[in-house]
Amino acid sequence: MGSPGQGEVRLATLSDAEAIGRLLFDFNNEFDEPTPEPAVLADRLRRLLGSGDTAVLLGGVGPDGLAVLRFRSAIWSPGLESYLAELYVVPARRGQGLGRALMLRSIEEALVRGSDSMSIEVDEPDVAARALYESLGSTNRAGGGGPLMFVYEKEL
Amino acid sequence: MGSPGQGEVRLATLSDAEAIGRLLFDFNNEFDEPTPEPAVLADRLRRLLGSGDTAVLLGGVGPDGLAVLRFRSAIWSPGLESYLAELYVVPARRGQGLGRALMLRSIEEALVRGSDSMSIEVDEPDVAARALYESLGSTNRAGGGGPLMFVYEKEL
Repeated sequence: MGSPGQGEVRLATLSDAEAIGRLLFDFNNEFDEPTPEPAVLADRLRRLLGSGDTAVLLGGVGPDGLAVLRFRSAIWSPGLESYLAELYVVPARRGQGLGRALMLRSIEEALVRGSDSMSIEVDEPDVAARALYESLGSTNRAGGGGPLMFVYEKEL
Repeated sequence: MGSPGQGEVRLATLSDAEAIGRLLFDFNNEFDEPTPEPAVLADRLRRLLGSGDTAVLLGGVGPDGLAVLRFRSAIWSPGLESYLAELYVVPARRGQGLGRALMLRSIEEALVRGSDSMSIEVDEPDVAARALYESLGSTNRAGGGGPLMFVYEKEL
């Protein structure tokens, strides 16, 4: 079977919107989170991809995984800040390096677009994702070795 | 001296860019973080305010404090997600409720713009900010009472 390389990951275009909608739907379904229907998500992603503030990377032939990146102008630097909003690999394809390949390609895409930082939100028990992020130089400690950085959220 | 109400907080316009640049500069200076010069920050904020994805609330006559909000289309809902990027009150005006007034007005502005969530990043030792966010219904636990939510960051 071999371990997938970055070559297996590609940048999504508008024509991938349906596949993206399905993967996002499967993602939230798997984790018992509420989710709009795949077609609604496809429409939304079509709009986001068209707006230019969003990039999606797809992995595998299914496709079997995706990374969703958001970009916006930073405040403290002249570049863009990027945010890894979603990272998902279907169950049957886990443990084969696809998540890592998606992350590597995401970092590359962020650099190409002129980002100087990437942030990611993750829950404490999600040790697989945390280990992956840490292995790629991401940290949840301010300044690299400082205090833990929390996300606070409020529904409005 | 009395405690300031929300009335003391107003939405910034483009003509406030210089004052915003000074406050942001003072903010990072106080915490020994690197910062561009005030004029550079003013230019950047002028652009962000003009782009429509950013709102700034100013508090006090100095002005003596600010909140910077960023908005973008959400993925899982039809609304906007809002992000409180910065919250600062000058040292002489702390402990008088200005931070709370800025937060309340920020939540109001986010609602007016059609946001359905607000996220905030904060370091673990910043107990004053965390207490303020928690008192307003913000939580760093997934789903309200679940696991801690971390931010991971990577410089690119």
